[in-house]
Amino acid sequence: MDELKPRLAAALASHDLTAAAAHLAAAPPQEVAAALATLEPESSAVAFRLLPRHRALAVFEGLTPTAQHELVQLLGEDEVVAVFAGLDPDDRVGLLDELPAAVATRLLRQVDDDARAATAVVLGYPRGSVGRRMSPQFVDVRPEHTLREALDRVRERGHRSETIYTVPVVDDSRRLVGVVSLRDLLLHDPADAVADHLARPIVAHAEEDAEQAARRCVERRVLALPVVDGEDRLVGLLTVDDATRIVAAAGDEDAARAGGAEPLHRPYLLSSVRAITRTRVVWLLVLGLSAVLTVNVLELFEGTLAEHVVLALFIPLLTGIGGNTGSQAATTVTRALATGEASPRDLGRVAFKEMRTGLLLGAVLGSLGWAVASLVYSPSIGTVVGLTLVAVCTMAATVGGTTPLVARAAGVDPAVVSTPFITTFCDATGLLVYFTIARAVLGL
Amino acid sequence: MDELKPRLAAALASHDLTAAAAHLAAAPPQEVAAALATLEPESSAVAFRLLPRHRALAVFEGLTPTAQHELVQLLGEDEVVAVFAGLDPDDRVGLLDELPAAVATRLLRQVDDDARAATAVVLGYPRGSVGRRMSPQFVDVRPEHTLREALDRVRERGHRSETIYTVPVVDDSRRLVGVVSLRDLLLHDPADAVADHLARPIVAHAEEDAEQAARRCVERRVLALPVVDGEDRLVGLLTVDDATRIVAAAGDEDAARAGGAEPLHRPYLLSSVRAITRTRVVWLLVLGLSAVLTVNVLELFEGTLAEHVVLALFIPLLTGIGGNTGSQAATTVTRALATGEASPRDLGRVAFKEMRTGLLLGAVLGSLGWAVASLVYSPSIGTVVGLTLVAVCTMAATVGGTTPLVARAAGVDPAVVSTPFITTFCDATGLLVYFTIARAVLGL
Repeated sequence: MDELKPRLAAALASHDLTAAAAHLAAAPPQEVAAALATLEPESSAVAFRLLPRHRALAVFEGLTPTAQHELVQLLGEDEVVAVFAGLDPDDRVGLLDELPAAVATRLLRQVDDDARAATAVVLGYPRGSVGRRMSPQFVDVRPEHTLREALDRVRERGHRSETIYTVPVVDDSRRLVGVVSLRDLLLHDPADAVADHLARPIVAHAEEDAEQAARRCVERRVLALPVVDGEDRLVGLLTVDDATRIVAAAGDEDAARAGGAEPLHRPYLLSSVRAITRTRVVWLLVLGLSAVLTVNVLELFEGTLAEHVVLALFIPLLTGIGGNTGSQAATTVTRALATGEASPRDLGRVAFKEMRTGLLLGAVLGSLGWAVASLVYSPSIGTVVGLTLVAVCTMAATVGGTTPLVARAAGVDPAVVSTPFITTFCDATGLLVYFTIARAVLGL
Repeated sequence: MDELKPRLAAALASHDLTAAAAHLAAAPPQEVAAALATLEPESSAVAFRLLPRHRALAVFEGLTPTAQHELVQLLGEDEVVAVFAGLDPDDRVGLLDELPAAVATRLLRQVDDDARAATAVVLGYPRGSVGRRMSPQFVDVRPEHTLREALDRVRERGHRSETIYTVPVVDDSRRLVGVVSLRDLLLHDPADAVADHLARPIVAHAEEDAEQAARRCVERRVLALPVVDGEDRLVGLLTVDDATRIVAAAGDEDAARAGGAEPLHRPYLLSSVRAITRTRVVWLLVLGLSAVLTVNVLELFEGTLAEHVVLALFIPLLTGIGGNTGSQAATTVTRALATGEASPRDLGRVAFKEMRTGLLLGAVLGSLGWAVASLVYSPSIGTVVGLTLVAVCTMAATVGGTTPLVARAAGVDPAVVSTPFITTFCDATGLLVYFTIARAVLGL
């Protein structure tokens, strides 16, 4: 099924536009979008022009905002206006956000009043809010309608609506009273009242953070989330496919940041070495500069080190285990935060749980370290290594587990600060603990 | 919206079952499922019993397999049979997989023939395949049907089907020829033939890996993926909500493993310290044992260290930067693998790209390191630190970027081997490089 891309690339490379058009015509729009996203922008624009207009729109909607932006820069103004006018209002706003303000204003001026009005509704909400990502066009029905009347209404007005599978039910003042699924409209007695099949909806508030609402939509397994304003009046629907996109984009960012890099926003193999370097270098510099702390800590103990060079041998082992313990704890708690299982209010419980977990891990690793180092080196080195492991694991787990909560409370993305900072912090404090214990045990 | 859990917990704690039942009755099933998942198993079972039967089923389907399993152990056999018989066939199989074989057989014997037949279809596919997660009950139509006929068919037979929004179209020998959306059935001229509104579907093969198919369903933004057998005959549908669950579970696992731990399968705050320790200790032991390598490497250079104790000061800095560079590269490439942007065949391209990226990063960090270390210590120490940074970054990025590809080619989960192993490997080889350069530059 996935051979579209190589065949399309080959046809384009040999300038066989007829073959390319045939390949494009045979594939579903989402597959075409996936293939275009992995082509060089120029080839992608050529392929896009080979699509008939109604399919071009579906393909465009399947592209990421970055890919849409690249494509728009390579298309002529007429082509862009045609695509722009045909998009759903939320996608139109997404594209506007990517374009320079002057281009955006010009585009908006060229679409019809209806489209501009729908776009304006969505544009009225702050960036990053659900309101900005919802579809403001929907078919609503009343509780007193019969299922037959409701279904007729959907048939009449459904064309402009992004989804018709979740039908919001509103009262006289447009306040949301529930939802009814198209499935219920279709499968139950047409004479029933809508009120009899009303489900309490999972709603989102228009000003709410889009990622949070999208996660709710995906986790609660609904096909659309009604979006309401401050007075509970229905203003739009967030569909599950838009929600999935929002969650996936957030996941990409989290994964990249957990690895200490910024997200690429472009397919990896198509990104230039300079672009990749840019996403990584700032983090490495920040980490490198904070790692200077470890040099400072070690300088404090240069005398101890000179007397007992053997202590240097264990530095990477101890900092490595500390860093790993800390990042395990940070990963678990960051995940629990993302899924709503834990919140900054749980700081005390998390700290206590991680302290005990770290102590237990430290006891296991410490006894092992003590046994091995005592046998291979000396009992006193064994004692130093064993005690350091207990202390380092306890400290690393506690700090690793609580940092994401503190970050969240301070309004910082936990994924950004967690792993890399914890590693550096554990390295520096671990060394302090190590040499303090060493001095005490070796009687220096 | 999310106050159900505290209110429910309070009502249960004060044994006010009437209040608990009222809270439960007022919330949508998905919200109830989310609340039950965060309660202690015993409270969760009490709350479950307060639900009317038809809602209990919807709630049960919203629970994770682990939560389902816990609940089943606390319910009476009659209750379990009632729940089991009411589940969709794919969910039924999911539950069977979690139960001991004896219990599973007993349960299967007690449901009616239809349900058993549908379950058997799903059970016939290997664990981890789409066949195992699909819904075998669907309404199919023929290309020659009119939209009106097709819609009537959906109305008649849709009750048993998990989804009716994507209607598969098959020929005389049950071979899949396309799909038609319920939207098209409803919004176009009822006299049109189904053939005129046929869309080429994105399909899955029943034996295919469930995660891979689920990702396709989610990424291509379709509401259901038709599942076909080896002869292209339709055998089921994978719905987007099941697909989202599969992807989310895989994401949890990847995130946990990227942080060097096994997934918890239970809400974090409800997991015991021992359970959390178990998910982490094996990884820490493996990493700790491989970190012994760093001790061995350093032993080789004990003499050099004794002469130049100052060299020890930079050990955590250099291994830290190496580890971070490696894990940045590993994270990016693991993500590219997961999203299908890169495959093991791209090994050469990835290696070349990462080598150049690492060289560029090394050049930036190396010049900085050289300048600082030259000023603070001595020009020769500066040269050693600078050159080591260039070498370590280049090596770490190359190894970090290629390891996930090699792991995938060898059939190992890239998320498992990537970050932690790369860190250890970079530590050991980084030290080798460091002391080799030091000996050469300092003329030892």
